[in-house]
Amino acid sequence: MIDWIAFDADDTLWTNELLYREARSRFAQLMAPYATPDQAGDKLDQIEIGNLGDYGFGIKSFTLSMIEAALALTGVQPEGRVIEQILGLARDMHHAELRVFDQVEETLTQLSERYPLMLVTRGDSFEQERKVRRSGLAGYFRAVEVVGDKSVEIYDRLLTKHGIAPRGFLMVGNSMRADVLPVLALGGMAVHVPYVHTWSYDVAEEPPVDDGRYFELAHLGELPPLLARLEERGAGS
Amino acid sequence: MIDWIAFDADDTLWTNELLYREARSRFAQLMAPYATPDQAGDKLDQIEIGNLGDYGFGIKSFTLSMIEAALALTGVQPEGRVIEQILGLARDMHHAELRVFDQVEETLTQLSERYPLMLVTRGDSFEQERKVRRSGLAGYFRAVEVVGDKSVEIYDRLLTKHGIAPRGFLMVGNSMRADVLPVLALGGMAVHVPYVHTWSYDVAEEPPVDDGRYFELAHLGELPPLLARLEERGAGS
Repeated sequence: MIDWIAFDADDTLWTNELLYREARSRFAQLMAPYATPDQAGDKLDQIEIGNLGDYGFGIKSFTLSMIEAALALTGVQPEGRVIEQILGLARDMHHAELRVFDQVEETLTQLSERYPLMLVTRGDSFEQERKVRRSGLAGYFRAVEVVGDKSVEIYDRLLTKHGIAPRGFLMVGNSMRADVLPVLALGGMAVHVPYVHTWSYDVAEEPPVDDGRYFELAHLGELPPLLARLEERGAGS
Repeated sequence: MIDWIAFDADDTLWTNELLYREARSRFAQLMAPYATPDQAGDKLDQIEIGNLGDYGFGIKSFTLSMIEAALALTGVQPEGRVIEQILGLARDMHHAELRVFDQVEETLTQLSERYPLMLVTRGDSFEQERKVRRSGLAGYFRAVEVVGDKSVEIYDRLLTKHGIAPRGFLMVGNSMRADVLPVLALGGMAVHVPYVHTWSYDVAEEPPVDDGRYFELAHLGELPPLLARLEERGAGS
């Protein structure tokens, strides 16, 4: 009954949001002569969300938004080396160690023996492909798809491209908004694995309807037993 | 004999490099109090190429490189609103009109009736998907692939993903380095359609070996007749 299993990458297979949190806090420190940490954070959030339509996701977008926020908070003329420090901060993000979560490798090893696996990650293809390479996990995936956004339309196109029926597609990820709701809307199955740090943009209010296609797990190690139960249920029906 | 035809996008289907040339020239104007146009251009080129490994391709990378170059050229403290003007320049690039070349639509209409077509474009997935949507050409392509770079390895992965044999794959594009050489190296066919403005990074010195798998055309309108000749040759052999 399950034909393909797809995984989100950032904050599902490895840490990511933590990097942005650290960068936000360093940005607030740089802005300390001009604004309180709350003012700096609010301005950055506002500019970042406002820029998504033009810039999309990823470190480069975030960096451009930090620079724009710095100009706004400092009356266009930041002191000394602020812009240079923001560029340095961005470079640290690009070079930060990629920390794969516990249980990921074991889970992917088990599942890849039985199912074709896909990686579906939103963002900048260059940044994301680089992370996939550095993670050492590329070999587990039959397909790696970097998408500009995770909308119903984009999932629909992915499924069509790979010839997958929605009911046989199961998506696993930490974002209710990006990994769960659009896949359920298409008729697929979704497993939510919440992560302690989730970007405010990706938090969705609506709880999914419980019609047997939505599951929540504490960590990826719980995925193989869940799939075994689902396959039994499918076989018994 | 030809199973799939793939097209590069920027400067093959629509203008792109021109936008960067205009931006470079506006950047040089902004730097006029600090550097000659040649100095400004050389510094920007050098920083841009140096950043490719971290940032990849696209408008956001280019913008970050302009900001870095401005800091370098102005001794870290640009006057007044220079950084703001660079951000404005980037925003103009994001919103610039997408100009599809003549003959593209007609050629794609003809070819899509007979072959599955793929778009293979290098860059930022968000930027590139947005351009594909705005071009109105999405409907002609069975698959749209945004890749972080165009290396032999990445083409190899694409072909594997789509189950295409290299000898049945024909790639069409303006970049010798990105569209022609890696595809020939894999055993595919390549059609070079040079464009008057080609980024220095994409110019390759080596001329491809002429063993009947490489072709050069003046414009895309010459593609359907070339394919007809190739199919005849294939049928006759």
